[in-house]
Amino acid sequence: MADEATVHRTIDRYLASCSACDADAVMSLFAPGATIEDPVGSPIRRGHDEIRRFFVELWERLTSIEMRPLHIEVVGNEAAFSMEVRPVIGDQTMAMKAIDVMTFDDDARITSMRAYFRMSSLRPVEGEGVVSDG
Amino acid sequence: MADEATVHRTIDRYLASCSACDADAVMSLFAPGATIEDPVGSPIRRGHDEIRRFFVELWERLTSIEMRPLHIEVVGNEAAFSMEVRPVIGDQTMAMKAIDVMTFDDDARITSMRAYFRMSSLRPVEGEGVVSDG
Repeated sequence: MADEATVHRTIDRYLASCSACDADAVMSLFAPGATIEDPVGSPIRRGHDEIRRFFVELWERLTSIEMRPLHIEVVGNEAAFSMEVRPVIGDQTMAMKAIDVMTFDDDARITSMRAYFRMSSLRPVEGEGVVSDG
Repeated sequence: MADEATVHRTIDRYLASCSACDADAVMSLFAPGATIEDPVGSPIRRGHDEIRRFFVELWERLTSIEMRPLHIEVVGNEAAFSMEVRPVIGDQTMAMKAIDVMTFDDDARITSMRAYFRMSSLRPVEGEGVVSDG
């Protein structure tokens, strides 16, 4: 089992690498054969090729994106964390909250990720305030 | 599929019923054959008898408990939500954050619950402040 501090570092690097739209850095965090379901209920992407394509196609639609952690829980080889996601679309900064659930292998690489969010909760950010809970 | 507003109501009632230590009310929210894993990595409790016993034995060790929702995401028949859990042990109010992940049947009854938290994050509450993120 990976130690929890190492899993925590993987999550920190995941959020930073996604915020940098750095596909190589993001993919270095996924185990071979990993799966993502983003959002929950959508088709599962499996393996590095499909996961990389998912992220690259997402980022191509955005000017930039920032993923700000709110609360991270690591329990053994599993984790759940809440975050504020701030995509910039054109020149408009949007924001929504999301909760990701991940599993990890013994090297603290991500073996699965499922993302709980609703696109309908996305809304424009006025100034630099944080979106409220709810 | 249950509609998301009904699933949301089940979660609201779950948090309120747990905070009231009301076993009948909590159990009315679980489907027959439901499972809980609380925390993640601990033995799975299956069915109403085992789940009721888990909650009653937990509450017997506490003076009271309050579960305050922070952020709730419902996606179809699944949900994840963060919360602040405030058990009172003796006359000391403690607090920690947790993230629960649930699945639901078509009547919005809970079919599974997995709780992500670490007991080691539990700490005394000074005054009425909310525990900080992290």
